[in-house]
Amino acid sequence: MALITVGTMAFDAIETPFGKTDQIIGGSATYVAYAASNFVKPVQQISIVGYDFPQEEMDEMKSRGIQLDGVEIVPDKKSFFWSGKYHIDMNTRDTLVTDLNVLADFNPVVPDAFQGADFLMLGNLMPKLQMSVINQLKTKPKLIVMDTMNFWMDTAMDDLKAVLKKVDVLLVNDGEARQLSGELSLVKAARTIMQMGPRFLIIKKGEHGALLFHENHVFFAPALPLEEVFDPTGAGDTFAGGFIGHLAKTEDISFENMKTAIIIGSAMASFCVEKFGPERLKEITKADIDNRLAEFVQLVNFDIDLV
Amino acid sequence: MALITVGTMAFDAIETPFGKTDQIIGGSATYVAYAASNFVKPVQQISIVGYDFPQEEMDEMKSRGIQLDGVEIVPDKKSFFWSGKYHIDMNTRDTLVTDLNVLADFNPVVPDAFQGADFLMLGNLMPKLQMSVINQLKTKPKLIVMDTMNFWMDTAMDDLKAVLKKVDVLLVNDGEARQLSGELSLVKAARTIMQMGPRFLIIKKGEHGALLFHENHVFFAPALPLEEVFDPTGAGDTFAGGFIGHLAKTEDISFENMKTAIIIGSAMASFCVEKFGPERLKEITKADIDNRLAEFVQLVNFDIDLV
Repeated sequence: MALITVGTMAFDAIETPFGKTDQIIGGSATYVAYAASNFVKPVQQISIVGYDFPQEEMDEMKSRGIQLDGVEIVPDKKSFFWSGKYHIDMNTRDTLVTDLNVLADFNPVVPDAFQGADFLMLGNLMPKLQMSVINQLKTKPKLIVMDTMNFWMDTAMDDLKAVLKKVDVLLVNDGEARQLSGELSLVKAARTIMQMGPRFLIIKKGEHGALLFHENHVFFAPALPLEEVFDPTGAGDTFAGGFIGHLAKTEDISFENMKTAIIIGSAMASFCVEKFGPERLKEITKADIDNRLAEFVQLVNFDIDLV
Repeated sequence: MALITVGTMAFDAIETPFGKTDQIIGGSATYVAYAASNFVKPVQQISIVGYDFPQEEMDEMKSRGIQLDGVEIVPDKKSFFWSGKYHIDMNTRDTLVTDLNVLADFNPVVPDAFQGADFLMLGNLMPKLQMSVINQLKTKPKLIVMDTMNFWMDTAMDDLKAVLKKVDVLLVNDGEARQLSGELSLVKAARTIMQMGPRFLIIKKGEHGALLFHENHVFFAPALPLEEVFDPTGAGDTFAGGFIGHLAKTEDISFENMKTAIIIGSAMASFCVEKFGPERLKEITKADIDNRLAEFVQLVNFDIDLV
């Protein structure tokens, strides 16, 4: 039940209405791996970092069952750096700095030791690189989940569409679903996107929860109403990590189990936003996760027998 | 288990991306009554109309157990008229025309025959008029539910706060909850508002569902993802009608039963938006409602035992 994760490991500098950080750890694959490692081992990471990525962070990851054999370390370049500022509503943000650094040369290589993994999480990345990883796998994974973003729809739509044909689950936000499909209604957008390849579609709506579509079925997972969203950075990646982590743990890719997986992803995301960066994800225990899941049950559980 | 409803009965002219109507039936109390009448009888309506409000509409309402003894008919004036145009996202709209007509003189009188009702639904209306109805009741209802809007927060906040002290449940949308409380976080907003009077607070988020707050508890009801929202007019009133209709039917005002009531309100609202005005609400049967409720169960039901 090994899980391969592909994506960035990076530095972020973040400003929110609640505070500001200097350079802290970030990157899509970082969040995915920390979240997934609560459920499945090994997590087999494919990424690229520069000379400046802290050894302690990598040691921390290894101690959680995250294998870093697929992480290239470039000795003379810096790690990918992103800086952004969130608006007061926390749903929108401005990018202040994007320094690609090592990411400009990223050419992911799947280590031999990673061959045979049943689950593949393609974090948000240039579609050509996502495709390269799929093509390097000698056995087709049981499930491929793909994250992407509007930037690739604007700049590499053909490549993105080619990857879509190869994946089982696509993760996008509501705006991206509309852009990809050309449909305003999310129900129509889902139908159109599922004809492009993925049999399952997850539409993330941030603080408004997430929708899972499959054939004619739809499932809705709310986001936990929080007093304060401290830093939304990485929440989508953490959601993805919890989602595929649960599926890999249970080795059950039915629609019914995906519902559970989405709730687990939402629970993990609700922790992520409580502190800057992946900090909170490193603190939580199994008991914390179980308690949070119980809150989700309370949040949506109702009795309709009365009618 | 009688239910008193107070609000407008009116004409609307609506333009949406999907079509345009001339003058059709509208008004908050109209939607509330049609929705509630599926669950409870009698619905005792308090409103005001002009000479132009169609007798056939009133006959239709009476046939559904809606008593109109509290509806004043002004022989020489027109009914309240509102005209609006929805934007492409259907979440925002511009008001084109507001002709108060009879509403300028509205002075609601509770008929003797309505005294003793256990449930009171105060539809969106000038707070002073909502207060007048509360004060006319000789016995305190088991439950008072109040709807309001940002317009009254801008123009009659003191009156609105006085009514808040008298009601059990307040219904507002997310923007109104933030305006009323001065808090950006809905969780904090809810806590502040519940200190103003209502023990229960429902925050409506349109296509993103609704939250029910009570003490330290929170429940979330999704909106059904629809292919097309044809006309959102009246959806909030219809939600309120389904909500209080179920509570009045079951005579159970526990938090647990309110969860069920919110799902029922959401189901009723999902019908409302399928056609212009209250048209769809007049077509649906008990079987339609039960099927729709089953869709809501499918939409949110998940199994967390696997974790």
